Amino acid sequence: MIDVTLIGTGGMLPLPNRFLSSSLIEYSGKSILIDCGEGTQVALSKGRHHIIKIDLILITHSHADHVTGLPGLLLSIGNAGRTEPIYIAVPKGQVKIINSLLIVCGFLPFEVRIVELPDKSYSFEKIGLNITTIPLNHHINCLGYSIELNLKPRFLPEKAKKLNIPVKLWRLLHNGESVEFENNKVTPDMVLGEKRDPIKISYVTDTRPTDKINEIVKDSDLFICEGMYGDDENKENAKSKKHMLFSEAAKIAKDSNVKELWLTHYSPSLTNPGEYLNYAIKIFENTVIGYDLMTKTINSNDN
Amino acid sequence: MIDVTLIGTGGMLPLPNRFLSSSLIEYSGKSILIDCGEGTQVALSKGRHHIIKIDLILITHSHADHVTGLPGLLLSIGNAGRTEPIYIAVPKGQVKIINSLLIVCGFLPFEVRIVELPDKSYSFEKIGLNITTIPLNHHINCLGYSIELNLKPRFLPEKAKKLNIPVKLWRLLHNGESVEFENNKVTPDMVLGEKRDPIKISYVTDTRPTDKINEIVKDSDLFICEGMYGDDENKENAKSKKHMLFSEAAKIAKDSNVKELWLTHYSPSLTNPGEYLNYAIKIFENTVIGYDLMTKTINSNDN
Repeated sequence: MIDVTLIGTGGMLPLPNRFLSSSLIEYSGKSILIDCGEGTQVALSKGRHHIIKIDLILITHSHADHVTGLPGLLLSIGNAGRTEPIYIAVPKGQVKIINSLLIVCGFLPFEVRIVELPDKSYSFEKIGLNITTIPLNHHINCLGYSIELNLKPRFLPEKAKKLNIPVKLWRLLHNGESVEFENNKVTPDMVLGEKRDPIKISYVTDTRPTDKINEIVKDSDLFICEGMYGDDENKENAKSKKHMLFSEAAKIAKDSNVKELWLTHYSPSLTNPGEYLNYAIKIFENTVIGYDLMTKTINSNDN
Repeated sequence: MIDVTLIGTGGMLPLPNRFLSSSLIEYSGKSILIDCGEGTQVALSKGRHHIIKIDLILITHSHADHVTGLPGLLLSIGNAGRTEPIYIAVPKGQVKIINSLLIVCGFLPFEVRIVELPDKSYSFEKIGLNITTIPLNHHINCLGYSIELNLKPRFLPEKAKKLNIPVKLWRLLHNGESVEFENNKVTPDMVLGEKRDPIKISYVTDTRPTDKINEIVKDSDLFICEGMYGDDENKENAKSKKHMLFSEAAKIAKDSNVKELWLTHYSPSLTNPGEYLNYAIKIFENTVIGYDLMTKTINSNDN
C-alpha cells in the first residue's frame, strides 16, 4: 500500500490558508516528495510528516512556486539528523537554477545528488517504486510523474496445502522461484494467483492537456492534476498561461480511464474551488476537490 | 509617526504557528522590510500589508532563515504591479548569495538594486528615514539596523500670531527659512519650539551582546531584539550558537536606556516564550514578548 498526501494545493503564490502545490508519496517507511515551493516544509511539519525519510524530490519544473522551499527543507532535514544522500530529479536544462538556489544552504550533513531528467518520457526506480516521467506543455520544460508499485501475484495457501508443500518453501515460490521437495518439482504458477495490476498514482501540473499525458496516466488508481481555473470561461486565460481548467483535467481523467481524480494547483483567485466542481463532475464523476493535507492510503485493486 | 510590525518572530525554521523573524517599518506611505525568510510574503499577506510599497529590504545576514523568501516576495511584488526599483541592502561579502537566490525569479518588472553595506557602522537615508547599521557578532557578517525619523521643532502659532506673521509664511518658517514681511524680518527660532529627539527604532538579531549595540541603539523608542532562548540555563548554548538569552537582550535594553523592548527570533524549541518573560523583566521592566503581526504606531515622544 502507498500513502499519498497533498502537502499543498496552491498555484503561483502561497496563501495564508493554502500552501503551494506539493505531494508526498510514502511507501515502505520512505518517501518521495513532488515539488517544494515556499512553505512546503511548514506544511510537512503541520501534517507531522517525517522529513528525514524523504529520499527523492521530484521537481516538475523550476518556476519559483515549485522550488523555492528547497533550501529550507534541506536544512531542516539536516537538522533532523539525516546523513544519507537525497536525490533531486529536475527537468532538462534546470540543474543550474536548482544549484543556484541551494548555495544559501552552505554545509549540509548529507549529499544532494541532482539528477537531470531527459525531456522524453523516461522510467527509473526509487524506494521500490517505478517512476515514469511525463513530458508536459508549459512555458519551460516541465514533467509530470507516474509512480507505480508492482504487485506480486497472491500466494494461494490452499493450493500449496493440496500439494503438501512445506511452509518453509512458500516464500521462495511467492518470490517466483521453483522448488523441489521429496522428489516433487513445483513451479510458482502452481501456487500463485493471477497477474495483478500495479498500484498507480500520477501527478500532473503546469501544462496544457496533451495526448502524452493520457497515454502515460492511463488506468491510474489516483490521478492528481492541476485545476488552475474552475470556470470554463477562463479557457483563453488557461491557454495563454499554459494551465488547465477543471473540465480539461476531468477530460484527461475520463479518456485515461483513471479511477479517481484529485484537483490541485488552484489559482490564488480561486478562493473556493468547490464552487466549480460541477465543471469537472459532469465529465468525470469521481473528481475530488483536493485540499491541503488531504491524504489517502491506496491498496491494491483486488483487496 | 512610524508604524512598526513584527511580520514573524521565529528563528531557524518557520513553524505552522510562527513565521520567521522579519519586521516592517512603514512611514509616509512607503515601507522598509527587515529580513525575508521562507514564508515572509505569506505573513505580509496575512497582515494585509501592501507589498508593492516596499522600497527597501534590509538583510541582517544571508543565513537561509533570513533570506529564502526573497524570490517569492519579489515575484509577488511584480505581480502586484510594481515597476519602480527595489533596493536590497546586504552585509559585506553576501551579495553573491543573494544574487544566486534570485536567479529563479527570471524576469521581474522592476529593477533590483543590491547594495553591499560596509562591515563598519554606516548611515544612509531612505524613504525619509535615517538608517544606521550595527555590526554584530554572529558566525558570518551580520548587521542590525537603527532607523530614525528626524522631527522638526514644533511650530508655535501663538508666537506667530503675536508677531502678526501672515499665515501663508508659517510653512516657510517651520521649514527653517527666515521670512520678511512689512519690513519685519522673522527667523525660525522666533516661532519654533525646542529641538526634538528623533523617533528611533532599532532591530538586532543573530548576535551575542556587544558594546557597539549598546552604543548605537541608545535611547531608542523601540528596541526589537532577538531572544533565542528564555532560560538563563541556555547561556552556553547561546554563546556557542552566537545568539542571545532574554536576559541578555534585557541588559542591552537597560544599559542603552531604550523605552521599550520587544523580543523576537525565538528558538523553535521555545513553544511558549511568555513562560520566560520574567528573566527579562527583572532586568528591564518594559519588555514585551513579541508575536507575529504585533504592531505599534510610534509617535514623537513629546505628543
